[in-house]
Amino acid sequence: MNIYEIETAAARLAGRAPITPFLNSPFLDEIAGRPVWVKAECLQLTGSFKFRGAWAAVSMLPGDTRGVIAYSSGNHGQGVALAARLRGLPCAVVMPSDAPALKLVNTAALGAEVVTYDRLSEDRDALGARLAAERGLTLIRPFDEPLVIAGQGTCGLEIAVQAAERDIGRATVLTCCGGGGLTAGVALALEHRAPMMAVRPVEPAGFDDVARSLAAGERLSNARLTGSVCDAILTPAPGKLTFPIMQQLCGPGLAVSDEECLRAMALAFLRLKIVLEPGGAVALAAALFHGEALAPGPVIAIASGGNADPALFRTALERYADLPPTGR
Amino acid sequence: MNIYEIETAAARLAGRAPITPFLNSPFLDEIAGRPVWVKAECLQLTGSFKFRGAWAAVSMLPGDTRGVIAYSSGNHGQGVALAARLRGLPCAVVMPSDAPALKLVNTAALGAEVVTYDRLSEDRDALGARLAAERGLTLIRPFDEPLVIAGQGTCGLEIAVQAAERDIGRATVLTCCGGGGLTAGVALALEHRAPMMAVRPVEPAGFDDVARSLAAGERLSNARLTGSVCDAILTPAPGKLTFPIMQQLCGPGLAVSDEECLRAMALAFLRLKIVLEPGGAVALAAALFHGEALAPGPVIAIASGGNADPALFRTALERYADLPPTGR
Repeated sequence: MNIYEIETAAARLAGRAPITPFLNSPFLDEIAGRPVWVKAECLQLTGSFKFRGAWAAVSMLPGDTRGVIAYSSGNHGQGVALAARLRGLPCAVVMPSDAPALKLVNTAALGAEVVTYDRLSEDRDALGARLAAERGLTLIRPFDEPLVIAGQGTCGLEIAVQAAERDIGRATVLTCCGGGGLTAGVALALEHRAPMMAVRPVEPAGFDDVARSLAAGERLSNARLTGSVCDAILTPAPGKLTFPIMQQLCGPGLAVSDEECLRAMALAFLRLKIVLEPGGAVALAAALFHGEALAPGPVIAIASGGNADPALFRTALERYADLPPTGR
Repeated sequence: MNIYEIETAAARLAGRAPITPFLNSPFLDEIAGRPVWVKAECLQLTGSFKFRGAWAAVSMLPGDTRGVIAYSSGNHGQGVALAARLRGLPCAVVMPSDAPALKLVNTAALGAEVVTYDRLSEDRDALGARLAAERGLTLIRPFDEPLVIAGQGTCGLEIAVQAAERDIGRATVLTCCGGGGLTAGVALALEHRAPMMAVRPVEPAGFDDVARSLAAGERLSNARLTGSVCDAILTPAPGKLTFPIMQQLCGPGLAVSDEECLRAMALAFLRLKIVLEPGGAVALAAALFHGEALAPGPVIAIASGGNADPALFRTALERYADLPPTGR
């Protein structure tokens, strides 16, 4: 993969997807003890960066494509559903039945057929393969697909421009990392456009397959796939395509607790006025609460998604958005 | 006032304040039955458009200025506090003691001295005048000040560019309206840069002094100043400077209920991933729920602020962010 693939993906996205904002707050800088910039991918179409990769892939399908299918905990599925709708293609999304309600509802509302399965008792891959074969659907992989990695990399092109506008040269770029599509794509883009930036993946504690794989020099798996609020980024193992890219360009990885994610969500609410879901808040959580593990200087945290269920968001506010007494 | 004053304010803000994003969602379009665009001023520095006018005014103060003072329910105060900090000037903000806690806390955290008063028993103007005289502070008015109106007008310059990029020509622009600084400034900017757009102020029902004044052709007051969740835009009457501008360029006004504001806050959370406060949600509420009163075609709603207290935001989500059943 090279920068040209990311540039052509950016050309296909231009005018179709917004350039997401690059936010900051003096309050967050104070907590982190350094400048913190937030790339607000929650404001991308469908509420996460996933639309970038989905459109980058779906826009390249041949005219005789019969339809598309995706496996997803919900964000990739929404991205593919919208991309398919924009191409006028039927779309099926295979989702776990315990996915957040908002993601199930939105994927269907975007016109996709949502097929749920039980994560403990059903074989997702067999279910999807049968559907795809029966209907002649084209599978859009969530991360191990060059067009998807290139699409996610367009986020990195934007970061390079937005950082340069603010005279940010050397910086740590923290990504919310599941299978590594965003991390690999952004790292490829920044290698060429902002080579002084170091890309480091962030994962939920206990589900840090990428961090452990980078440390071990081989692809390792997570012991389990449930038990974190960060549903969006609980993937079994680094991708076959994304891992070598991350090995060459990224690391070391970081891990944050569920509590730190909820706290970061509350701070993004209070200070940035954006809505983050837990899996979209891990990078910001690392920026705010794990400064001891970061090189000095500015941090750019990619806030990868905002599809938070209202009940969970209320919990995050209730627990962590308490205001200090005002003396009135 | 002319467009040149707005352009020079924009030049002073360039590189200092972000260009706020112009967001949309197919879900909101469906509710409104028309394209709805949201100018997300909640993502401006200090969480509202008020920093624009504050910096436009404070940046022009002479070098021997001893300090500044502002009266504010909290958003203008935060804008002035940050502007003063950037100029290295002392700042006092006179706020009602029942202002939202987040606004009291943030104004102080931005380095201002917060002086609270009881809205029922104390005379705000006398309190402020005494402080200003004692310390030689310069008053930064919230809306009846040409530099402030020009600063708020920079939001209109951005809207003209962002709408043109999306081929939006004729449109209704809805503003969240208190004293009319934002409304007048945006209307002046659009008169020159997007003359096919109609600017209409939106207020809380029962506090629609601007709508009634525009209808009557003279400045009328609100009967009361408490009793709405929209604290940010409960002003006694249209401004002396802003009213003639609004008379010439805007109207008729619209009014929305508190419930509609909370519902719009929940939809902005679900669909746009942004945080709005009630007073910052009136324009979106009108776009979504008062389509019958609007000309056909696209609507641009300025979401003017996001400084919502967490407890109120939780209430909005609890009441209005219910998801339809997912069938699982």
